[in-house]
Amino acid sequence: MDMLQIIEAKKRGSELGESEIEAWVRGVVDESIPLYQSASLLMAIRLNGMTFDETWLLTRAMANSGDRVHYKGFPVVVDKHSTGGVGDKVTLILAPLVAACGVPVAMLSGRSLGFTGGTIDKFESIAGVTCEFDDLTLQRMMQEIGWVNAQPSSRIAPADRALYALRDVTGTVDSIPLITASIMSKKMCGGGTHLCLDVKCGPGAFMQNFDDARKLASSLKQVGILGGLKMAGVISRMAEPLGQAVGNYVEMWEAVRYLTEWPKTPLAELVMALADHMLKMYMPDEEKRAAMLMSAIESGAAIEALRRYLDFCGGDVRAIDQLMSMELTQEGVAVTSTRDGFVNDIDGYGLALCARELGAGRITQNDRIDPMAGFILEKQLADEVKAGDVLLLVYGKKAKSWLSQNRERIPALFTIGNSAIDKASIILDEV
Amino acid sequence: MDMLQIIEAKKRGSELGESEIEAWVRGVVDESIPLYQSASLLMAIRLNGMTFDETWLLTRAMANSGDRVHYKGFPVVVDKHSTGGVGDKVTLILAPLVAACGVPVAMLSGRSLGFTGGTIDKFESIAGVTCEFDDLTLQRMMQEIGWVNAQPSSRIAPADRALYALRDVTGTVDSIPLITASIMSKKMCGGGTHLCLDVKCGPGAFMQNFDDARKLASSLKQVGILGGLKMAGVISRMAEPLGQAVGNYVEMWEAVRYLTEWPKTPLAELVMALADHMLKMYMPDEEKRAAMLMSAIESGAAIEALRRYLDFCGGDVRAIDQLMSMELTQEGVAVTSTRDGFVNDIDGYGLALCARELGAGRITQNDRIDPMAGFILEKQLADEVKAGDVLLLVYGKKAKSWLSQNRERIPALFTIGNSAIDKASIILDEV
Repeated sequence: MDMLQIIEAKKRGSELGESEIEAWVRGVVDESIPLYQSASLLMAIRLNGMTFDETWLLTRAMANSGDRVHYKGFPVVVDKHSTGGVGDKVTLILAPLVAACGVPVAMLSGRSLGFTGGTIDKFESIAGVTCEFDDLTLQRMMQEIGWVNAQPSSRIAPADRALYALRDVTGTVDSIPLITASIMSKKMCGGGTHLCLDVKCGPGAFMQNFDDARKLASSLKQVGILGGLKMAGVISRMAEPLGQAVGNYVEMWEAVRYLTEWPKTPLAELVMALADHMLKMYMPDEEKRAAMLMSAIESGAAIEALRRYLDFCGGDVRAIDQLMSMELTQEGVAVTSTRDGFVNDIDGYGLALCARELGAGRITQNDRIDPMAGFILEKQLADEVKAGDVLLLVYGKKAKSWLSQNRERIPALFTIGNSAIDKASIILDEV
Repeated sequence: MDMLQIIEAKKRGSELGESEIEAWVRGVVDESIPLYQSASLLMAIRLNGMTFDETWLLTRAMANSGDRVHYKGFPVVVDKHSTGGVGDKVTLILAPLVAACGVPVAMLSGRSLGFTGGTIDKFESIAGVTCEFDDLTLQRMMQEIGWVNAQPSSRIAPADRALYALRDVTGTVDSIPLITASIMSKKMCGGGTHLCLDVKCGPGAFMQNFDDARKLASSLKQVGILGGLKMAGVISRMAEPLGQAVGNYVEMWEAVRYLTEWPKTPLAELVMALADHMLKMYMPDEEKRAAMLMSAIESGAAIEALRRYLDFCGGDVRAIDQLMSMELTQEGVAVTSTRDGFVNDIDGYGLALCARELGAGRITQNDRIDPMAGFILEKQLADEVKAGDVLLLVYGKKAKSWLSQNRERIPALFTIGNSAIDKASIILDEV
């Protein structure tokens, strides 16, 4: 199979066949195909698209490029995938909550190169915690504490690892077939039997309009079904940071608050909708599910599931206790509003850029994260604001020095209008 | 200037600006931009196109990436460019013919990696001839013999050298803006003040339909004008090998025949049309031009111009004499027709593949060419054939052994029909 013929076929708009797609993925993994040829093919796919059949064949070939995690003795294991966004701490709350209801949960998460840390960075903001395990340890973790969240080993979908890195530097990330293959190839290898999707839609998300979000959700669902997964989920609105906290430790702090106090917010609404889908997969009665979820929070089972996980991951006892008592090890520096009105818009992307400058995210793989760095928002979308009210608190070693040079930037990220706006539901559609 | 932003812009269909195109070309030449990013951009250009302004800016940036040849004391220097095809020996005939009429001619030609050799390989099939010279020698060559044909130095349009190699392996050769920039960037540096185009059209050419050939011709012409060149030329039909000979020495042999006997064939018609354009550039009277061209052949001035060139290039006297007397140093092996009829089609591409197997072309840069390898066609399009008639003669060291294993292949390249077909004119349009 000649790579040039594969490129020519896609360039001319033809459908690639099984042997072509498999030859490409094989050549990516064994590095026999030069990066410039894969780059050219990726752009041809980005511009000419892929049929559903091609998308499935690519996903399968990528899933087959490495190993699969398998949890022995667990016929049902639920997983969740979010397309991501600023302040997305859903996993930190959802995984222990669902596990506390007796449903085995397994998720593989990343250390992100994005603006704020990935889920692994958030867990690892607790002193002592590390989330890299071999397969035997994952199995023991599932048996002992009932849920797993870990950094995937390099043997999971190595084709995706190589192609994702290349897409990132060749302008070929924003392709529904390529996004689908990247996500689902890993999900087919992560040990889950059921997958709940959280496809974000809005100015702060990958998919900015509802039509694209639905297309992506449908593509993920159909490919997942062919991959042998039971699929469900939601399309959710991403119009502002998800919750009050943006950073790593501050997001853990907020997760604890949800697992104990369960404030009535859009984030709680989203977590509950996802948790409900994950339980529904084998508990058909809706009222029972709702009661069981609230009981897991009220009984302390949910927060206990998080504590046991952090303990398993090596978290030091004092740091876990500090987190559980919702202690912040430093005071936040307040930024106040200069005017009265209502929050009509919050620029989550701008906020994430600031968080990265504070040390909450990485620019290169080798950058060290400041676990405390980030924000806690005191005002969110549709809130009323008076001049002098605190808009947010800034955390991290660099908080004061950064603010002294960037004092104007934070208020500019809040659009304060004269008229009130409605709080819209965070759930836009079911998958 | 961030290469990723340039890729994103072209991917989304935006027009690239001067600073973006110049940053790309600079990064290609100094190798600061990785090949996979240029590959991705090339595919985005192939699929989303380039406006005329972008094409011109790319051409200019590529032309400015290296040095330019300049012939001091020659205010008019004519050049010719053909988009190429099997058996295209136009330069071998046209350059000495036009030079014999007193018009300075300068062409830079290549050693091709194609199926048969490039123009330089054809000249170098004469023992002793080499066509690589420094600028001072080119200047002396122009002064002493009135015309120049040489391999361009590596300092001519180095951006094109790098991009062409990358296009060749990324499926991005067939793009009118990229073809235009590649051709015209070199032509702007080759020392010519006037450029005559020969854009081929047909099954044996790059541009298979007339519309595409016209688009390419128009793009080349407009860019050339902005580049300061006086432009003219033709669109010519490429339905069969151009002339009888396909190879290297055999094409030199055929060139000598045209420069002395001027047979009335489509090839002669094409050479005459191009020569007429090249003279017209400063001799407006059509009848005088025709008379001057025929007189250059009849007087022996044209063949003398070729002899002096080969002598300047180091050709050994005996080899030149042998060529001039149209001696073939070996006998061709005949392949005959098995049926009666009329030649309705000749598969030039298939013939070129066979010629390469015989040793007339290279597969890698390091392959040695057998100068004698190739074919002389005894039957061409529309000719009547009787069973037993010779279709062509096979030449080269490997002729007999190759034929013993491939005897069936040659007749299969000739479509012999029952009904006669018309000989169509080789000139389709003026540029």
